[in-house]
Parts: sequence; C-alpha cells; structure tokens
Amino acid sequence: MIVTIIGTGLIGGSMALTLKEKGFATKVIGVDASEQHLSQALALGIIDEAHSLQNAVTQSDLIIIATPINAAENLLPQILDIATSQVVMDVGSTKNNICMIVEAHPKRGRFVATHPMWGTEYSGPEAAVNNAFTDKATVICSKEASDPDAAALVEQVYQTLGMHLLYMEAAAHDVHVAYISHISHITSFALANTVLEKEREEDAIFELASGGFESTVRLAKSNPSMWVPILMQNKENVLDVLNEHISQLRKFKASLEKEDPDYLLELIEKANGIKRILK
Amino acid sequence: MIVTIIGTGLIGGSMALTLKEKGFATKVIGVDASEQHLSQALALGIIDEAHSLQNAVTQSDLIIIATPINAAENLLPQILDIATSQVVMDVGSTKNNICMIVEAHPKRGRFVATHPMWGTEYSGPEAAVNNAFTDKATVICSKEASDPDAAALVEQVYQTLGMHLLYMEAAAHDVHVAYISHISHITSFALANTVLEKEREEDAIFELASGGFESTVRLAKSNPSMWVPILMQNKENVLDVLNEHISQLRKFKASLEKEDPDYLLELIEKANGIKRILK
Repeated sequence: MIVTIIGTGLIGGSMALTLKEKGFATKVIGVDASEQHLSQALALGIIDEAHSLQNAVTQSDLIIIATPINAAENLLPQILDIATSQVVMDVGSTKNNICMIVEAHPKRGRFVATHPMWGTEYSGPEAAVNNAFTDKATVICSKEASDPDAAALVEQVYQTLGMHLLYMEAAAHDVHVAYISHISHITSFALANTVLEKEREEDAIFELASGGFESTVRLAKSNPSMWVPILMQNKENVLDVLNEHISQLRKFKASLEKEDPDYLLELIEKANGIKRILK
Repeated sequence: MIVTIIGTGLIGGSMALTLKEKGFATKVIGVDASEQHLSQALALGIIDEAHSLQNAVTQSDLIIIATPINAAENLLPQILDIATSQVVMDVGSTKNNICMIVEAHPKRGRFVATHPMWGTEYSGPEAAVNNAFTDKATVICSKEASDPDAAALVEQVYQTLGMHLLYMEAAAHDVHVAYISHISHITSFALANTVLEKEREEDAIFELASGGFESTVRLAKSNPSMWVPILMQNKENVLDVLNEHISQLRKFKASLEKEDPDYLLELIEKANGIKRILK
C-alpha cells in the first residue's frame, strides 16, 4: 500500500517508520511545507519520495495528515476534493473543529478523524522514533461519519502500530484532552516562565534541578507552532479547566497564608487520589 | 563505621543500602517511630539492627536523620545532647529552620546540614533503592558552622553515594528549592485535584492519559506527612513563587480569553527558554 505522510515530523515520521518496517506501507511519500524537513526525512529513511500534494494524493491509497491542526484544517478539504477512493486520516489533538469543517463535504466518508495519544516535547523528522505508539491508546472520533471501509483501514493502521482503539464523539474527545493533555502543557509552560522570570540564578537551577522539576517542566519545551492552534481551538474547554486549576492553586495558597496545616494535609491527601487512576 | 539511620524510608533506606554495599557502613542501625517500617527494613536488609534512639546514637559513629523535617527538628537537639564525638547529618528539604534551631547548641559543630537532590513520589522502606543517588547533586549548607572533621565525614558519605557536592547558605538554599522542587509539587497536587474535581469520567482519563499527563501529575502521589511540613516551613518562599506562578497562568488565560494567538505564541516561546537550563 502506498502511504502519503503530510508533515514529516515527530508524529508523521514515527508512524511512517513503523508502517514501513511492518510491511504495511510498501512506499511512503512525504509532503511537507519545509524543504529542510523533506531532506531530513529522505536522509533518515522516513520517506521514500517527496512529491507535491496533488501528485502524492493521486498515487496513494492512504493519506495521513500529521501537520499542526490549523494546517490540517486547511489541507483536509483540498485533499478530499482531489481524492477518489483514497482514505484520509488526521492525527490532530482537537477533533471537533476539523469534523465540522468537512461535515457537509461530499467525500466526508473518506475521512477518518483520529488522535493517537503519544508525543514528546521534541519535534521534526529527527525526533521521529520507530515503535513509538506500541501499547498506547488512540481515539477514533465520530466513526459513523466515515465509510466502513475507510474506518476499517484506519483501524488496521493503528493495529499495525500496536495501539488500542477507543471510540468517542469529537466534542467529548475535546473535553477529555483539555484535562489530560492541554492543561498539563499550560502548567508546564507557566512553570517554566515562573522560574525564568524570577529565579535569576540559572546555574543554581541547572545544578539543583532534580527529577521532579524535570518531569513537571519538560513539556515546556514543546513546539509553539503545534500548541498555539491546539490551545486556541480548544479554548472553551481549556479555559474551564484552567479556571478550575487556578482555583485549586488558590486553595494551596490559602492554606499557606492562613498557616493551616490541616487544610494543606486535606488538599494533598485528596490529590493522592490520583493513585486510583494512574498506576 | 557504625551508621544509624533515623527514618528507614525512601531516603534513609536508599542511603543505607548503598553505604553498606560500598563497605562504608559495617553495621546499620535503624530507628523508626513505625514498628512496621522497622520490620520491613530488617527484612529487606536495609538495617542490621533496630534500637532505641539513645542506644543507637551512643554506639554509632554517624547518625543520619531521614525523617520528615518536623520530626528531624525535634530529634536533632536531643541527639546533639546525647552525642559526644559522633557526627549527625540531616537530609531534609528545607535548611534554614533546622540550622537556626541548633545555632546556639554547644555541640552545633557535630551537625552537618545537607539536602541530597533525589526522591520519588513513593515512600517507606519498600521504596528504597540501591544506587539511587549516583550522579545527582547534594547541597551542604552553612558548612562553616560544622566542625571540619564532621563536614569531611559527610562529604565522604556523599562521595560514596556518587553525588556531586554544592555549597550554599541555608537561607539561599530554601529560596532555590521553592523554585525547583516545592512549586512543582504544588502544581502537581493542584493538577490532580483539578482533574479529580471536574473530570467525572475517570475511565476516560485512565484510558487516554499519555506520558505528558503522567509526568506532570506523578508528584501528586507524594507523601503528605513529608510535604505538609516542608511547604509550611518554607511558606514565605513558596508563596512568592506560587503568586508568580498564578500570575503566569493568568497570562495564558488572558491570551485565550482575548483570542490573541500572538500573545500565546510569545508566552510559549518564552517558556521554551527552559531548554537553556534543562538539557
């Protein structure tokens, strides 16, 4: 099967590597706005050929859109216009808007909206890794809007990547990811800015920083061109969660200001409840 | 050398394992308020014998206080009262208060104030691991207040554990750890409470939660009996950092409310600056 990857970075590149290795893709074509990324992806063996969008789509069986979500929303209608029997999937972190954009497209059935739950704070073809998705979850949204053969092919893609499949409505997906992904990124960005703003002795941070700091701040290295569109687009949900988060932080603040160790203990014991859902 | 570990949990237990393995400690005596922890520590080979505080101190060359900081502050003056030529060190996460408490003690010189920068979200003897401290940093505070032979012995302890040594005044230490450790714990606790408060579908979190969520929330599993005293005691510094952090979060909130992608981009690009200090 010939597969086109649009956006040859962390997610698209990692998918290409595994789909080729497993023999699912006999040829991978790369499409990317960045000439540099295309050269790197060719050099790293992530893609076999680079083509224009039109050429790539017409000769492929499957098109995977793995660009930032604002670019994906621009590209998807164009790709569906070109497509005949091809299957088109995206991998973006928000799902409601992209589904609405093509809701009335005559070839909506060829599109499958998905979100594999894996990523790192790194980006670009050099960040791509084989077998990245193994044992992670992936979401297929509003499956009933896709043609059965298109949904089945995409399920096969994710089975090949070793992922387990979850099904959700696009709007429900966007609420959940605000809690389990988007707010984590905002708190990391804000934590990085807190430290960079006030702690002038960067050498001290560098020397002292332990595992706890690194794990809460590492997401702050994430790529802005990916995250600005995600947070902007999911802003209603993200603002709900962010307001709640600020109000939770204010409780910690109050417990310290009032020198109330019992209240602080109650807050921390409640937080320990996360053990129920994180092993 | 005979070493007493007071508090046979994550930190004390991990130290004991390595000091024994390297031959630095020929015998490790455990002292713990919890009978259960003492039995576990004996069964796991972390300690060789369990004794009362008085008995343990009198027959030891080195006493390591590895209890929560409020207990350490109670114990330290008692131990210095009993001690003759023994060396006493603590490993607590705040340093200013414990140094002030024994400032005028006639045997202040036998005490060395330290803070090894390692820990996990787990606690108790079963969480202890050998070689936990290798290549991490440790801080020795206000070294000039310790007798030269006492400081030299503690430096030898940390060299045996494979750590690199940093020297700081106690008050400066407490400011730095507010930034690189205490605020990370508060944001994790608050993030856990945010999710537990509002996201009723725990199954969805469990299934969707990816590496990013896990890394920002894992510290929320941390032991309250350790963290309540730390945060209470360092509250002046922690409140400074927490106020700054809330104001940084408000900037993200404003960028979303005003639908201002340029401002959001600026905030995220600034946060990316953390790459300078985290590899």
